[in-house]
Amino acid sequence: MATAWVERRLAAILAADVVGYSRLVEQDEAGTLAALKTLRREVIDPLLAEHHGRIVKLIGDGALAEFGSVVDAVACAVAVQKGVADQQDSVPAERRIVFRIGVNLGDVVVEGDDLLGDGVNIAARLEQICEPGGVLISGTAYDHLQGKLGLPLEFTGEQHVKNIGRPIRTYRVRLDGAPALLARK
Amino acid sequence: MATAWVERRLAAILAADVVGYSRLVEQDEAGTLAALKTLRREVIDPLLAEHHGRIVKLIGDGALAEFGSVVDAVACAVAVQKGVADQQDSVPAERRIVFRIGVNLGDVVVEGDDLLGDGVNIAARLEQICEPGGVLISGTAYDHLQGKLGLPLEFTGEQHVKNIGRPIRTYRVRLDGAPALLARK
Repeated sequence: MATAWVERRLAAILAADVVGYSRLVEQDEAGTLAALKTLRREVIDPLLAEHHGRIVKLIGDGALAEFGSVVDAVACAVAVQKGVADQQDSVPAERRIVFRIGVNLGDVVVEGDDLLGDGVNIAARLEQICEPGGVLISGTAYDHLQGKLGLPLEFTGEQHVKNIGRPIRTYRVRLDGAPALLARK
Repeated sequence: MATAWVERRLAAILAADVVGYSRLVEQDEAGTLAALKTLRREVIDPLLAEHHGRIVKLIGDGALAEFGSVVDAVACAVAVQKGVADQQDSVPAERRIVFRIGVNLGDVVVEGDDLLGDGVNIAARLEQICEPGGVLISGTAYDHLQGKLGLPLEFTGEQHVKNIGRPIRTYRVRLDGAPALLARK
């Protein structure tokens, strides 16, 4: 090959962030940060461990996690959304913490503990356009889920992503009862 | 999740076999086995190491190898086809060893050193329908190669694979000068 070799790895990338984070912090900074810390300790970290995921990095109110399997990544995303919804069930809607999650499969560039490249950018973009409380996955991730997850997946169109020439197929994971807990921005 | 957890891994699977192996062995058993052994030692094993691949298993005249990246797997497949063609250049056509190689991306089930599931079956099927001396890859592998390999890829239609409901998109890697060394069955 003419190009220099770079370390690459097939990874399922999960990108998550908090819906309306700035608004929550503005209302109650200490309370929001404490609630997020509790969510992470009680819900998110145990689910990541259970599904063999690792946090790649935390970015403001968001996080990027890596899994060795798409099936594990999407199962984890669904479990996180259900776990967070249960834990936040009694919190008033205007102070409730709700996540958006995107999952993509990529042949990513590895630099130490960090991951770079299209695969990461697409996961972040999916998360940005995901409905609150939902899980949005790319077509390349979807292709490896069929018959392996037991959850309905719904085609939600092709999306154009900045700096990516080809459109990205997107699929929404249909979570039972999820619409009830959504407070759209 | 309702289903029991199984260990899964995203893997690029390379399946290879020798074109007309039975005929070659019938003509000259000892010579064919010795030639294959030499090819493996001089060409294939060094290229696998260079591209961070590992042999999962040898099956008769074929082999299954695993890579952590699709880019590495296809680059290795191309390098193997070029290396084998160079090494066999002076061998008479009727005794020449020519490989077929299929590459697929799968979220496969891991059982010790072995890999199981659709992802493996599809790689083997691609290899069976690949032209002699060529490299045939699946659509899900192709989706992660764009702009990362520097080799032209040609769409070669959708194929139906036994026990796989949806058709598999296939792409041929265009190897410079490859048609000249092909002896079709």
